[in-house]
Amino acid sequence: MPTMSNLRTNADRLWSTLIETAAIGGTSDGGIRRLTLSNEDRRVRDWFRDVCVAAGCTVSVDEVGNMFAIRRGRRSDLPPIAIGSHLDTQPTGGKFDGILGVLAGLEIMRTLQDAGYETESPLMLVNWTNEEGARFAPAMLGSAIHAGLFDVAYANERRDANGVTFREALDGIGYRGPLAAGSMPMAAMFELHIEQGPILERQNKQIGVVTGIQGMRWYDVTVSGQSAHAGTTPLDMRRDALLAAARIVLGAEEIARAHAGLATVGEISVIDASRNVVPGEVRLTVDLRHHRDKTLEAMEKALGVLLNSVESVGYDIALQKLWESPVVQFDADCLTAVEQGAGQIGCSFMSIVSGAGHDSANIAKIAPTAMIFVPCKNGLSHNPAESATREDCATGAQVLLNAVLFYDQQKTHKPMRGG
Amino acid sequence: MPTMSNLRTNADRLWSTLIETAAIGGTSDGGIRRLTLSNEDRRVRDWFRDVCVAAGCTVSVDEVGNMFAIRRGRRSDLPPIAIGSHLDTQPTGGKFDGILGVLAGLEIMRTLQDAGYETESPLMLVNWTNEEGARFAPAMLGSAIHAGLFDVAYANERRDANGVTFREALDGIGYRGPLAAGSMPMAAMFELHIEQGPILERQNKQIGVVTGIQGMRWYDVTVSGQSAHAGTTPLDMRRDALLAAARIVLGAEEIARAHAGLATVGEISVIDASRNVVPGEVRLTVDLRHHRDKTLEAMEKALGVLLNSVESVGYDIALQKLWESPVVQFDADCLTAVEQGAGQIGCSFMSIVSGAGHDSANIAKIAPTAMIFVPCKNGLSHNPAESATREDCATGAQVLLNAVLFYDQQKTHKPMRGG
Repeated sequence: MPTMSNLRTNADRLWSTLIETAAIGGTSDGGIRRLTLSNEDRRVRDWFRDVCVAAGCTVSVDEVGNMFAIRRGRRSDLPPIAIGSHLDTQPTGGKFDGILGVLAGLEIMRTLQDAGYETESPLMLVNWTNEEGARFAPAMLGSAIHAGLFDVAYANERRDANGVTFREALDGIGYRGPLAAGSMPMAAMFELHIEQGPILERQNKQIGVVTGIQGMRWYDVTVSGQSAHAGTTPLDMRRDALLAAARIVLGAEEIARAHAGLATVGEISVIDASRNVVPGEVRLTVDLRHHRDKTLEAMEKALGVLLNSVESVGYDIALQKLWESPVVQFDADCLTAVEQGAGQIGCSFMSIVSGAGHDSANIAKIAPTAMIFVPCKNGLSHNPAESATREDCATGAQVLLNAVLFYDQQKTHKPMRGG
Repeated sequence: MPTMSNLRTNADRLWSTLIETAAIGGTSDGGIRRLTLSNEDRRVRDWFRDVCVAAGCTVSVDEVGNMFAIRRGRRSDLPPIAIGSHLDTQPTGGKFDGILGVLAGLEIMRTLQDAGYETESPLMLVNWTNEEGARFAPAMLGSAIHAGLFDVAYANERRDANGVTFREALDGIGYRGPLAAGSMPMAAMFELHIEQGPILERQNKQIGVVTGIQGMRWYDVTVSGQSAHAGTTPLDMRRDALLAAARIVLGAEEIARAHAGLATVGEISVIDASRNVVPGEVRLTVDLRHHRDKTLEAMEKALGVLLNSVESVGYDIALQKLWESPVVQFDADCLTAVEQGAGQIGCSFMSIVSGAGHDSANIAKIAPTAMIFVPCKNGLSHNPAESATREDCATGAQVLLNAVLFYDQQKTHKPMRGG
């Protein structure tokens, strides 16, 4: 008799599904190139629909290609609890980013079917369109449309590098569905994902209970000094913009350390660079992240102080904020369900904040949401060498199942929040 | 009766010659675009030949286009004392770089002719081909051929950006002369030039007695760390190549300060840069200069120590030396003549080391040589805004004349050195 406490996902089946489907868009170096709405995406979507139907689900597709596979629950009056992630990849992507969340969801559907277990709420497996943003910017587009952050027309007009629109690509693979975007109800969302960072591996933990997603702010900085002859200009008469920029690079890291956050200068360039000319103008980017908006605000202020201090020794500095994404805080009840799910099988777990963006950041705006991380080798992602172990994938799938079942039990007797 | 002590160059004539000839290749922003062996170069060469002949000189051209205008001396058995510089410019050049040295030489020829003054040795005004190197690399090619540092075939094969060879361009403007390269004898060489740096202006000196040219060494540095996700990689797990590069940029400047030399990082680039990726590899250039080869060697060693110290905290660093140019020390007797020449008119002067390369660096290898600098506004050069005052140009021309006459007097009674 299957119960909440003895239902077990099948580690071998999950692993072989991961490995077998990696052939769809698989590259010779072990990675996957499966750009959203490409022919490879069509193939994996066709396969996904078929296996979901075979696992007892009803599949519907919305007008931006988001796929929803619903397994009936005992109570048809309740909105479904959602699980899932995305099946598209970066141009030189790996086998786990996004894919693990969808295929673990499939494994859960198969497990429930094999056991004949019936949840209270319906259970829904989602494959979001264009999470990666590698073909159509911005990233996480399908979930953003679902959450009402953009309208469908905006999505349809996005163009790839060849000028093909999102709508044309969607029609091209036959995945513009009849369901109105955002109309599918959702009681909650649980997303399993590889960490894409090194923390769980270094801390030797099997599961990360993702409490939220860091806030991020992006800036462009232009440092103006004076270009000058490298041979004839004494040090004390120079206004070398690269010296100033180097202080900003190191100063940004100090700001991150002082606030226990992150700072990255990913791009830097000398304008009209020449090896025997003292740099007159340097442009650089700054990426600041923290899991508290208040601290992020303090980091931004500290960046301003740093730039002022550099400016005061003879430079002109322009700072432009390009973008900001506030901190996302996941739902306490969902997080409790994940912790209970992990505790139930006695695996090691820790709280963790996601440094990367995910579809769940969008969904958290409209429904109770949480994420579960499993370790990935050396923290590497967006790379053919991206790797997670069979055991960690299986643990993740089991914790995801447990969390969903806990949530299903706890919530069906209370009025639903969000939605 | 003209004597060594009362001969005066004509400041107005020199200035108007500078301004009038600036129209040959003149640009609307006040600069000159007169690339070597271009039609503009042909026009200024034709003009130069005519005015030299009118000033009583015999003009000959060697097989790489170097022009030699010789005014007879009392003794035809002595090799000529040379003055001059170059008439070609950078693509966006100014009115003084090189040009002042040639036109001040012309002013001296005219002054001597007007006064009927006869030197002991012949006096020779030189216009070197392709000093700038902007059309054909390397720079200072005509003087290098003259000094035997390259052979003529090497020069002839140089190509510009359009694939035109040096020889084709030389034939195109009719300036491949009959004189064998390097065959023109030379007792000594004096070159007047704008400083191209800010020192004389800041020190409020009219004349720089150029004791030599700095040694230079050029390096490429590659810093390898580990590229990583800017959102998911904690600071302590990063090997951010740009942080290492920033330490090298600042460390190179410290090395320069500690050795009273110069260090410049003119180019820096992050490989596969993205604003949300921790830089995995950074390449940068280092330009080290000093007026003592021994100290330059010590600076190179210090750079190695710096790179090792950065490497020891988790990076791989590759250092490649691309080029080095040893220190050039100008001739003591020539320098004495310049100082006597400056002292004679009571102008302010100081010893200075040239940070930039000049034709005289090549000529110093085969004949006693010295240079004279005059201030230029804000140290600016290779720019349409390049500027020197009428008074400073006149002072430079007068000191040049005085130096040549002193040298002529002192040397004609001793056996010649060099040649």
